[in-house]
Amino acid sequence: MSHTEISESIRDQIRELGRKARKASRELMGLTTEQKNDALNAMADALERRKNDIQEQNALDVAEAKANGLSDAMVDRLMLDDNRMASMIQGFRDIAKLPDPVGRILKSWDKENGLKLEKRAVPIGVIGMIYESRPNVTGDAAALCLKASNAIILRGGSEALRSNQAIAHALQEGGAATKLPGHSVQLVPIRDREAVTALITMDEFVDVIIPRGGEGLIRAVAENATVPVLKHYEGICHVYVDAEADPIKAWAITENAKCQRPGVCNAAETLLVDAAIAESWLPKMSEILQKRGVELRGDDRAREIVPSMKPATEKDWQTEYLDMILSVRVVDGLDEAIEHINHYGSGHSDAIVTENRERQHWFGRMVDSAAVYINTSTRFTDGAEFGMGAEIGISTDRLHARGPVALEELTTYKYVVTGTGQIKE
Amino acid sequence: MSHTEISESIRDQIRELGRKARKASRELMGLTTEQKNDALNAMADALERRKNDIQEQNALDVAEAKANGLSDAMVDRLMLDDNRMASMIQGFRDIAKLPDPVGRILKSWDKENGLKLEKRAVPIGVIGMIYESRPNVTGDAAALCLKASNAIILRGGSEALRSNQAIAHALQEGGAATKLPGHSVQLVPIRDREAVTALITMDEFVDVIIPRGGEGLIRAVAENATVPVLKHYEGICHVYVDAEADPIKAWAITENAKCQRPGVCNAAETLLVDAAIAESWLPKMSEILQKRGVELRGDDRAREIVPSMKPATEKDWQTEYLDMILSVRVVDGLDEAIEHINHYGSGHSDAIVTENRERQHWFGRMVDSAAVYINTSTRFTDGAEFGMGAEIGISTDRLHARGPVALEELTTYKYVVTGTGQIKE
Repeated sequence: MSHTEISESIRDQIRELGRKARKASRELMGLTTEQKNDALNAMADALERRKNDIQEQNALDVAEAKANGLSDAMVDRLMLDDNRMASMIQGFRDIAKLPDPVGRILKSWDKENGLKLEKRAVPIGVIGMIYESRPNVTGDAAALCLKASNAIILRGGSEALRSNQAIAHALQEGGAATKLPGHSVQLVPIRDREAVTALITMDEFVDVIIPRGGEGLIRAVAENATVPVLKHYEGICHVYVDAEADPIKAWAITENAKCQRPGVCNAAETLLVDAAIAESWLPKMSEILQKRGVELRGDDRAREIVPSMKPATEKDWQTEYLDMILSVRVVDGLDEAIEHINHYGSGHSDAIVTENRERQHWFGRMVDSAAVYINTSTRFTDGAEFGMGAEIGISTDRLHARGPVALEELTTYKYVVTGTGQIKE
Repeated sequence: MSHTEISESIRDQIRELGRKARKASRELMGLTTEQKNDALNAMADALERRKNDIQEQNALDVAEAKANGLSDAMVDRLMLDDNRMASMIQGFRDIAKLPDPVGRILKSWDKENGLKLEKRAVPIGVIGMIYESRPNVTGDAAALCLKASNAIILRGGSEALRSNQAIAHALQEGGAATKLPGHSVQLVPIRDREAVTALITMDEFVDVIIPRGGEGLIRAVAENATVPVLKHYEGICHVYVDAEADPIKAWAITENAKCQRPGVCNAAETLLVDAAIAESWLPKMSEILQKRGVELRGDDRAREIVPSMKPATEKDWQTEYLDMILSVRVVDGLDEAIEHINHYGSGHSDAIVTENRERQHWFGRMVDSAAVYINTSTRFTDGAEFGMGAEIGISTDRLHARGPVALEELTTYKYVVTGTGQIKE
């Protein structure tokens, strides 16, 4: 996916989208909170008005996907039933009600020379969103980006192009009746993959790329983008049960972290148990999990205690199962657990269960992940659960945003320095 | 500079540095503020002890640079005279005294389900620093990174390799007598440029690259890195003199922004003057600047008022002169000025001079730059001037850090969530 491989015509089309998005993003900086909220509500109205058109176009996408032999899971994600439409529409109204992340004063201070400094939250600018199948992302992402005064260029999966176009059309129609700048929301109308390459290398007009989808998509974007990317690849999340864990909490937390929704990135994939508690605690845990249908894969020491476990291999510690499978390892205390997590984990969400204060603090400090949990389930890593209202994704990157990416994370900042004629000596 | 062009041997050596840096970075997470400050002071002591060795090695670099015909400016930057040594050493002691940026609670809140959430500042991890000529950067960058509990891999210019090795050696010697993990500070000992390519594509072990040097170096790094880069290319900074400017402040601010130190990135390159004040204000301004030796390049309207200006071309608005040259344009009011700045500027530092409150606010809001100045000089964009103690560079990127990059900007954050057994329903 290098620059030279993109056809001139596709590059020109994407540049034109970029130019318009940049212009819109400058104008968005001048909008008031009320004007943005008006636009969001008008978009919700337009989606309601256009519901039938959108669902008709979606039916065509679904039919083609079936004819092309796409998996049932893909087809399911593609479908815009009444519930999904309603929740996308509600999303716009909910986000209109959230506080405006732009204009917050993050810090302010005075210097001895009389200068007044202010660090102020401002929009990032133009956001490129690259995603697969689920057309409702088109609405959700647009609403969040606009609330943070960003222009957005959307590039959904080619299998959802008709649905996405119908949604984008409704959003544009809704926005047009308000103060929203034209081209605040644009959809890439090109099925060709070269369009993605053009978008993620257009540094001049795009400030950040947010990819959402399978690991393959995200890696391809991250490896080829010259524009900064906010992303997570996978969630290899751990629960560590310490020698001083409350056994009942530990059973419940582990069961929840693994079983409550195993197919998501904040579900646990590996259980680490301190040797000091393993013999008394692990058999019951295994019973609970096996009753829920979880396949257990243990290291030698775990299998000595629960022989029904399959043997775990090195590969198990590195695997995001997204399934009812859990790898289990017995460790000698906290430091070994931390080392395992920092080595094999993906920096997403990891939990300790212990009543020991000192170990709680050390785990919280030394586990190098976006979210660290003490006596609670890893399943809480989520914008809504954190009280952010909604999220556009999760980041396991280290710069700019870690964990849930929501409205505040869709802003950056600038310094505004006010003086009375000061000059530098 | 693609992956496959790097020789296996260089890649292996760089990976070995990376592995060790990652290990050190994990251990650094456990250090107390006092332990870090001890290490910084011990490094200052070691630099003092090793001063003669360092200057001897530096003399060899300087001699070779002269023999190779490097420019006088390059040779000057390379030299480690007593003043530069002293200021590098003092840097360590000063940074030891600054507040610890790690562990700050950026936010904390409780959820209805009893979960306690904390957003806590943590180190970024491993920082790769790529720079040219000036060997004192080796010390300055190491001190800042370590204070923020980051491991650092330094890659200075090949012309300064002996000097940098002597400095790094002293730092390692100083650190070794303290609790600082081994390999917290490492220098790439390879002159070959492939070493840079290997470093900037080693996502597994390097979390951010900070390049410092000429625009050529920075563009080469940014275009080829897969690791995130914090950078600025250039500073095309503006002063806009509004119709309601205090003319005396406007003369002083413009003179200061252009002349106080024209060779740096926050010096002004373009003066924009509202047509309503141009006739009365511009002639005296031109006189002041021309007396200082500034060459003026004006658009047609500016030259009508001051015919001695050379004509400005389109290229002038896009040029960072870093010299005693100023382009001048007469604009019709605030919006045209903002448009010019957002179009031609580099998002670095831009100033308005006006007594009109509304226009101050609109300029502060709509100019899309890291630092926006109201009635004061652009020359203040600097970590020390902002009260950050010291800086490792300036960022005109939009993600993570904008403006001066200092200790707080060398941290990221994590969420620590504490419960009493909560599970997700």
